[in-house]
Amino acid sequence: MDFTLITILIGIVGIIYGLLLAKVVLSYKVTDKKMLKISNAVYKGAMAFLKREYTTIAIIAAILAVVFGIFINIETTITFIAGAVFSALAGFIGMSISTRANVRVASIAKEGVSKALRLSFQGGAVTGMTVAGLALLGVSGFYYFYRDPALTIGFGFGGCLISLFARIGGGIYTKAADVGADLIGKVEQGIPEDDPRNPAVIADNVGDNVGDCAGMGADLFETYAVTAIGAMLLGVALGRNDLYVIYPLILGAIGIIGSILGSFFVRGKDNIMKTLYKGVIASAIFSLIGFYFVTVTYLKLDIALFFTTVVGIVIALLMFFITEYYTAKSYRPVRSIAHASQSGAAVNIITGLAVGMESTLLPALVICAGILISHSLAGLYGIAIAAMSMISLTAIVVALDSYGPITDNAGGIAEMAHLPDNIRKTTDALDSVGNTTKAVTKAFAIGSAALASLTLFAAYVDEIARFSLGKEIIFSLSDERVIVGLFLGALIPFLFSSLCMKAVGKAAFSIVEEVRRQFKEIKGIMEGKTEPDYARCVDIVTKASLKELIIPGIIAVLSPLLVGFILGKIALGGMLIGSILSGFLLALMLATGGGAWDNAKKYIEDGNLGGKGSPAHAAAVVGDTVGDPSKDTAGPAINPLIKVMNTLAIIFAALFGSGII
Amino acid sequence: MDFTLITILIGIVGIIYGLLLAKVVLSYKVTDKKMLKISNAVYKGAMAFLKREYTTIAIIAAILAVVFGIFINIETTITFIAGAVFSALAGFIGMSISTRANVRVASIAKEGVSKALRLSFQGGAVTGMTVAGLALLGVSGFYYFYRDPALTIGFGFGGCLISLFARIGGGIYTKAADVGADLIGKVEQGIPEDDPRNPAVIADNVGDNVGDCAGMGADLFETYAVTAIGAMLLGVALGRNDLYVIYPLILGAIGIIGSILGSFFVRGKDNIMKTLYKGVIASAIFSLIGFYFVTVTYLKLDIALFFTTVVGIVIALLMFFITEYYTAKSYRPVRSIAHASQSGAAVNIITGLAVGMESTLLPALVICAGILISHSLAGLYGIAIAAMSMISLTAIVVALDSYGPITDNAGGIAEMAHLPDNIRKTTDALDSVGNTTKAVTKAFAIGSAALASLTLFAAYVDEIARFSLGKEIIFSLSDERVIVGLFLGALIPFLFSSLCMKAVGKAAFSIVEEVRRQFKEIKGIMEGKTEPDYARCVDIVTKASLKELIIPGIIAVLSPLLVGFILGKIALGGMLIGSILSGFLLALMLATGGGAWDNAKKYIEDGNLGGKGSPAHAAAVVGDTVGDPSKDTAGPAINPLIKVMNTLAIIFAALFGSGII
Repeated sequence: MDFTLITILIGIVGIIYGLLLAKVVLSYKVTDKKMLKISNAVYKGAMAFLKREYTTIAIIAAILAVVFGIFINIETTITFIAGAVFSALAGFIGMSISTRANVRVASIAKEGVSKALRLSFQGGAVTGMTVAGLALLGVSGFYYFYRDPALTIGFGFGGCLISLFARIGGGIYTKAADVGADLIGKVEQGIPEDDPRNPAVIADNVGDNVGDCAGMGADLFETYAVTAIGAMLLGVALGRNDLYVIYPLILGAIGIIGSILGSFFVRGKDNIMKTLYKGVIASAIFSLIGFYFVTVTYLKLDIALFFTTVVGIVIALLMFFITEYYTAKSYRPVRSIAHASQSGAAVNIITGLAVGMESTLLPALVICAGILISHSLAGLYGIAIAAMSMISLTAIVVALDSYGPITDNAGGIAEMAHLPDNIRKTTDALDSVGNTTKAVTKAFAIGSAALASLTLFAAYVDEIARFSLGKEIIFSLSDERVIVGLFLGALIPFLFSSLCMKAVGKAAFSIVEEVRRQFKEIKGIMEGKTEPDYARCVDIVTKASLKELIIPGIIAVLSPLLVGFILGKIALGGMLIGSILSGFLLALMLATGGGAWDNAKKYIEDGNLGGKGSPAHAAAVVGDTVGDPSKDTAGPAINPLIKVMNTLAIIFAALFGSGII
Repeated sequence: MDFTLITILIGIVGIIYGLLLAKVVLSYKVTDKKMLKISNAVYKGAMAFLKREYTTIAIIAAILAVVFGIFINIETTITFIAGAVFSALAGFIGMSISTRANVRVASIAKEGVSKALRLSFQGGAVTGMTVAGLALLGVSGFYYFYRDPALTIGFGFGGCLISLFARIGGGIYTKAADVGADLIGKVEQGIPEDDPRNPAVIADNVGDNVGDCAGMGADLFETYAVTAIGAMLLGVALGRNDLYVIYPLILGAIGIIGSILGSFFVRGKDNIMKTLYKGVIASAIFSLIGFYFVTVTYLKLDIALFFTTVVGIVIALLMFFITEYYTAKSYRPVRSIAHASQSGAAVNIITGLAVGMESTLLPALVICAGILISHSLAGLYGIAIAAMSMISLTAIVVALDSYGPITDNAGGIAEMAHLPDNIRKTTDALDSVGNTTKAVTKAFAIGSAALASLTLFAAYVDEIARFSLGKEIIFSLSDERVIVGLFLGALIPFLFSSLCMKAVGKAAFSIVEEVRRQFKEIKGIMEGKTEPDYARCVDIVTKASLKELIIPGIIAVLSPLLVGFILGKIALGGMLIGSILSGFLLALMLATGGGAWDNAKKYIEDGNLGGKGSPAHAAAVVGDTVGDPSKDTAGPAINPLIKVMNTLAIIFAALFGSGII
């Protein structure tokens, strides 16, 4: 029996389930014209962003497709284009639903938290299901045709390209719009957040979707594809049985079924966070049952392989719980930042930095334990299987993340449309949980990116060996090229984060100028008589963010090629590992620290330590503002960075490895 | 001819020259009783700190000495005690002079900048010369007796222990006292900095010396000793000729002579920074001439070795110039932070973080280029020789760094004693250069610590091989133990920095309480009628800082042992490199970023962008306060961290390597 046909089928099932959910979400009719108008503006803004982004990508993709065709092979060109198109399609479907689900959630909120929660989760699940389904379909489909995972690596890189744009450009967009809206609206004009008089308010709402729906979707699409391909390459290297090559795809298929079943558990009148977690835990349990049945009972593989899948699931859940500890208002880290705010902004920042750095400890230990255990169970292949098992939860995780911008937007729409207080209470309750889900899924994305990249590195080593005509290639720490590569690799995430942080400032500046201009030149905005020019703000921040991603994007793509061609394959190997090491730690520090700063402010806003308007609150706002580009731009953008570097290395392994260089 | 006798002799020459300079400094008589009283309080406070610190260290050292005696050998116990005593002695001499040079500089300032500059430099050179002299004397002396560098590694670890205490404890002390004095004095009571009515003012002045005189001295003493020993071990491994074992010591001796000659060039009426740089560049040139003559003409060694010494000197100078670019007021990075301050504290912090992260780029490239070039010239031994050549400038570099607290204190004394404006102008001019010298020498310390640690790692690999009875030991990136070790090693500096940052907050809190109490309970302080209880503040911050260093200290010492004993020698090798990678980058980011924040504030205080009291200034003060524990506590403390881990690994290599584990 050809299992690949089954995994193709299940990929399609995931997509269809996603589309069904989309129909469910869209079938809810909204009649309030004011709300529809706002939602429509957000929808149009999001589509305008995607259109411009995809147009830019198309040009770059065309060039890369030609390069791959000339230097690598035609299969890589084809799969590369397909990967980019599939990932873009997932982003497009996700964005087009989540920017229309927002108004429906705001509208259904009058019927209670429970229904609103269900609808917003379903909206998020559209993105989750299409991302996982398209990724599995793509990898399985191309493997079905080519029967060689090495020829499908282009599919992964197609995902990389979209992810790079979505994470960097999207990250810059979301924070530039946020800062621009806040700085002029809240600070200079003294109007509340999400006030329709603010010209940047639509851009801000678009930005939420750009970051946490399209950005996370593309990021996990990429991780999914490259982990599967990397694991399959290691399966080939085992040289035993085709089953080991297809096994990663089978895990992915089970994860999709598990996530579909798990998604039915997101209901009930419990605490909102608990309800969402129920869905994740149910998906994990269903997947594990499936893993056991298929691995042990049906395929009769070594039970050790099943245990490595358990390792992957446990890593995923631990990443969730650890990050929750570091970013939720009820625990020590966030409270320590809130308390520090009483001594002013500087002490808030110092404490936040300390919390961010400390928050790397447990995830790093978890990843290390995961590596050691899965390696002892099944060698390098075991690590790859653990990574694949972890990423098989993609559908439910992306659903959780995309839930965030939907409820965030719903709150904004409720506020802009002046809905009654009880409705806004409901949307606020949903939104505040969204902050936590965004933080915990980010940690999942970082952890899975690190494991995916380690899998890719192992595949790189295999590829290099394959092209070295039997000569043994060792990447030894006693080799000065490896050490130099490690230094250069570890350096890149620092440099890259620096550029991303600065880019937010520059892009924000352009929108601040525009918002100021509109308030000055368009008469009647403040009185609510004239509508500001929302579209122009959306346009400006779109252009600015795409411009600012050029340099970090070039660094991500060119640095491994330069090192590979100039210093050679050995130094490149060091560079790959160096980038994973410092990228993993820096991304965690930035993402978790940023989340903690955010919730420290919210903790004070809940009425603690003086509440809103107190000096402690002013200090906490500074921390939150610093945390914004950390957690939404620089931190998440490191994920595609390390994956792009590792994937490119595999693509060019033939050139580096064959002794040409 | 036995060259070791000559290097012993030149070590003694360095010490004697240091003591002569001390005599010159002390021979300048100060008559103003008010000034003497202040200086005396600082002197006593510094001695009280050292006494308590050394007492604590003595207990720990006694335990370690026994452990080494039982598990390693008696030679390690002896050299360990000697290393600790020598380093402590250097710290004691340095501190006892610099805390008395301060008042003399304040006094001589009336005779003009030129004389004051000369005297403050001489005060700093006392520490520089004794540090380098004692380190060279110790390593040479023990090699003379034992004829095996492996038996002298204890001397390096003795230096490590003092350095760990001096950098962590001293770093916490200096910033806790600073913050404590500022927060209550400047902010709550509205009195100027360095006001004698502030109970913490003496502790603050003591802190400057504890950080930049004792801390830097102990740090470079350690780097000097371990680099020399590491290079000698690699010289042994070359297996060619005893000359290669002694060669590092010869370079050290030449560096001392070069620094003595170079120190005569620190004179003239030029720009202050230029005058100091003249001394460094002259020292570098004299050393290079000496290196060439001895290496090529006299010893007739391969000229490639001379070129590796050039690499070391060039790295040292480039680290200076790059850091100057990132931390001086006249260049883009500092100005960008100053400009960002106009948009508030949050934008100042974001920009400062971005500058800090960016500032890792060029130093990392310089170190990488240095590694590749010196390796291509003379293999691993070449890297060690480049490191030794770099660190041979210790005497002049420590002189430059210790110049900082002397002029800082001189400014404080001038202010407290209400000296006329023209004198304070002179001390201010000297002090503002001190900020730059402190920043650039920190980058030197970080760069040399990284190279020293790489040398130690290479020695560790050799030692492991030696104890593995011929079995080849490879630290390969394809080995999961190496990867886990790399992750754990890279994690440690993040965790450690987090603890250091938080420790400053806690220690500062204790002194803030005390200062508040004194202002409340001791009547007449604000009117200047009653003297506050300075000694109590000094005592409290001393105790607090020594208490706070316990946990980071334990992490530094135990983490390599735990990994070595539990995960084995292979994982430990990965851990060592991981710690060097992330430690190097994080230390640079924190130290350079902190320096840039500091000078951005000073740039605004110079009257730019609104000057003192403007909103931009308020924002810049926040950045400066965040930068303080970054650049003076966490950043510099990473240096001993990575050296301690690497040195301990060598000491226990016999246990890890012999297959017991």
